[in-house]
Amino acid sequence: MPPVSAIPSRLCLGPGPSPVPPRVLAALAHPTIGHLDPAFLALMDEVRDGLRHVFATTNAMTLAMSGTGSAGMETVIVNLVEPGDRVLVGVNGVFGGRLAEVARRTGAEVTTVDAPWGRALDRDALAAAIARSSPHVVAVVHAETSTGVANDIAGLADLVHARDGLLVVDCVTSLAGMPVEIDAWGVDAAYSGTQKCLSCPPGLSPVTLSPRAVARLDRRRTKVPSWYFDLTLLKSYWGQERAYHHTAPINMLYALHEALAIVREEGLPARFLRHRAAHERLAAAVDELGMTFVSEAGHRLPMLNAIAAPAGVDEAAIRRRLLDEHGIEIGGGLGDFKGKAWRIGLMGHGATTESVDTVVGALRALLA
Amino acid sequence: MPPVSAIPSRLCLGPGPSPVPPRVLAALAHPTIGHLDPAFLALMDEVRDGLRHVFATTNAMTLAMSGTGSAGMETVIVNLVEPGDRVLVGVNGVFGGRLAEVARRTGAEVTTVDAPWGRALDRDALAAAIARSSPHVVAVVHAETSTGVANDIAGLADLVHARDGLLVVDCVTSLAGMPVEIDAWGVDAAYSGTQKCLSCPPGLSPVTLSPRAVARLDRRRTKVPSWYFDLTLLKSYWGQERAYHHTAPINMLYALHEALAIVREEGLPARFLRHRAAHERLAAAVDELGMTFVSEAGHRLPMLNAIAAPAGVDEAAIRRRLLDEHGIEIGGGLGDFKGKAWRIGLMGHGATTESVDTVVGALRALLA
Repeated sequence: MPPVSAIPSRLCLGPGPSPVPPRVLAALAHPTIGHLDPAFLALMDEVRDGLRHVFATTNAMTLAMSGTGSAGMETVIVNLVEPGDRVLVGVNGVFGGRLAEVARRTGAEVTTVDAPWGRALDRDALAAAIARSSPHVVAVVHAETSTGVANDIAGLADLVHARDGLLVVDCVTSLAGMPVEIDAWGVDAAYSGTQKCLSCPPGLSPVTLSPRAVARLDRRRTKVPSWYFDLTLLKSYWGQERAYHHTAPINMLYALHEALAIVREEGLPARFLRHRAAHERLAAAVDELGMTFVSEAGHRLPMLNAIAAPAGVDEAAIRRRLLDEHGIEIGGGLGDFKGKAWRIGLMGHGATTESVDTVVGALRALLA
Repeated sequence: MPPVSAIPSRLCLGPGPSPVPPRVLAALAHPTIGHLDPAFLALMDEVRDGLRHVFATTNAMTLAMSGTGSAGMETVIVNLVEPGDRVLVGVNGVFGGRLAEVARRTGAEVTTVDAPWGRALDRDALAAAIARSSPHVVAVVHAETSTGVANDIAGLADLVHARDGLLVVDCVTSLAGMPVEIDAWGVDAAYSGTQKCLSCPPGLSPVTLSPRAVARLDRRRTKVPSWYFDLTLLKSYWGQERAYHHTAPINMLYALHEALAIVREEGLPARFLRHRAAHERLAAAVDELGMTFVSEAGHRLPMLNAIAAPAGVDEAAIRRRLLDEHGIEIGGGLGDFKGKAWRIGLMGHGATTESVDTVVGALRALLA
């Protein structure tokens, strides 16, 4: 077996993982200690504070689940949804579709409000669906990684709360790369991943629940179907009791701690501007190269740029050459965009002028 | 926030995590690449081969789940059990109890065969219970981390298979520290964790399913309740199709790859002997110190030594002083043994003469 050290370096400009700064890798490699060690419990408290900062929330129940982003999705759904509940999901890409699938597996009655791939969800359509069925839970993806589209969240909670529902938001790709305002927006539950704009390796899923969501959890008639994701048990480990639940992924939490420290040092407003500036630089180059976005104007994500592959070009071959000849990873299309689009991620540490110029230069050379 | 580098070093001789060798930490910190990168997919193949080696199996479906050991437990149960199925669980500690709880949440009809804490499961009692209810699944913990007891697995599969059931074995603490013979024993599904005798940080759960278990999975009448743990989807990512499921914890897989390489270099027989020798050295010292094991003779685990705290000693205070004054972590008792026992782990890299002498020396000083 060739050693791990033989794995080539890549410039990760796909849909995630994003480039991980050396400081975060160094933290990751700090010697492992026990998950009940007072020094580790203190670090967990700081991780929670850092997560509250990036989520812009004061939610007591804020923690990192021991799994990747989809583990956070499943955590939120299985804790807040019971069999027979009405769940409304906005679907305009892979991750909205996944939310609906995860909800269906709980035995909920799931309906969707759909929008075409590349377009944002329609607020009027969501409002009408909420008025029609008074859903127990409404779930929407903030930054749809599969299409590069941002769905508006502000204002949605009022519609959901008026019918006594909970608003769940997928912030996997948006968190720490564009404004996410859990408290100001009235979001009841949100989850993310570490490998996007936090620039930490994949393996943890930040989750936050509002007091209203916790009250719903406390009122459940049935046990949470998943033991591993059961927040009624996990809150005893992340809370004062420190009751053992499962062995936390210690080193991943070291890395997340460092990634959150870097976010604080830069400041969220500066970080958002940096992501926006990188996106605008890439958008100008896309235009200059005669290419077009597949995501609708006005709803384009800064950190995930979904671009139509030029007609007559074998998009997979170009991606492979980018990887093999230039050491750059970009993503292909999923679902409706399979074989038709490239997804260029400018996330976290990767949202820089240099990244943009490097990938544009390589694409220009390969398409010449 | 103090940096991660300020976290003190510990000699991890508790129930896990175990000491992680510098080579594994270095692999963990290798720069992150994409989860669909050909270089990463090649590494996954090698990880699978390495897992087959430690499980002593040729099972096609062998993989590392993206979560800690309890995620592997949940994976096996939710994939192999359907609502209404009869599940029989052997319970003689925390982890048997957890298996029963996870199985109950699937809607299965769960019965248990219990043994007192510190004693092994009784084979005749298991045989009688199997004959009585012909369970769809029989689940047993091989190495009960909460009590330091080994349950015999060899011979059990014949009883289970005669009634057309599947045998599930928890190998979290045993794998790579004592003989685990998945194929020779006829085990249908097993799971483990990385932070015990593999001496890798926590965060992944090796899982293996026999062809018989895969056939059961393929015949399910209902969808797997968990999307994140759904092996019918995950096998497409670990298999030839390489279909995207979720973003794998890349760096954790680097670390596991290196940990498995170390196991191969040492060889499993030598590794088992090393664990056995460390245990015997500790057992001699325990005897000399006038202390006793709480686990029954003949069924003591080499890697997890459960010892009665001497009468009149505040066991928690001693553990705290071991940590603060000597930098050594050992575990306290759980459940029936809470406040009454110490659990000294000699796992993986920690199963050495030096570890034993260090912890015995420190205990001797503190108890003097």
